[in-house]
Amino acid sequence: MITDDRLSAIFAALADPTRRAILARLARGEAAVNELAEPFAISLPAITKHLKVLERAGLITRSRQAQWRPCRLDAAALRDATDWLEHYRQFWDQSLDRLDEYLQNIQTAESDDSHSV
Amino acid sequence: MITDDRLSAIFAALADPTRRAILARLARGEAAVNELAEPFAISLPAITKHLKVLERAGLITRSRQAQWRPCRLDAAALRDATDWLEHYRQFWDQSLDRLDEYLQNIQTAESDDSHSV
Repeated sequence: MITDDRLSAIFAALADPTRRAILARLARGEAAVNELAEPFAISLPAITKHLKVLERAGLITRSRQAQWRPCRLDAAALRDATDWLEHYRQFWDQSLDRLDEYLQNIQTAESDDSHSV
Repeated sequence: MITDDRLSAIFAALADPTRRAILARLARGEAAVNELAEPFAISLPAITKHLKVLERAGLITRSRQAQWRPCRLDAAALRDATDWLEHYRQFWDQSLDRLDEYLQNIQTAESDDSHSV
């Protein structure tokens, strides 16, 4: 069971476009800090700060062994966030069901109209 | 297509345990501000502030008509957040596949051992 604090840290880490872009890059494979910084018009210290937020949230891990300390995506935290959101899936599914129902009612009404002409 | 700013606002709104608890309460049905405040040991203005964050992120809507202005869950924003996370599902599925593979290898090894005895 994930704690409230951990879930808050994960969502806070995801609430930034640069951090989400870093995760998208790491989804293609591990990378060093300077590789991660390349596509962004921000300084290396700023990237390092983002990486620390991601690491604290458990979204990435950094190798302690290799000298270039590659960053790697840790998908377990993303799964925890998705698990929380999944509880609400029934609500948007219900909305789609209601839309389906509405569209079917329109079609039935139109078909009734064409019969009565 | 959801914008980066909207996605950031949704994740930032979800990064707070009180706001997540408010959404969980609204999943059971619409509620007035004072009903939402009841379970929390925080002031009505503090709850109102949380509601504004949720409303700006599109996670809730507030009725303009009824005088008690009930709050209602808007699941579309939760679906947008889940859609973003779903891109990463393959990564935790892969981790589970690797775990499966590992457990199967252990079983095979154990079964080989028992045959050789």
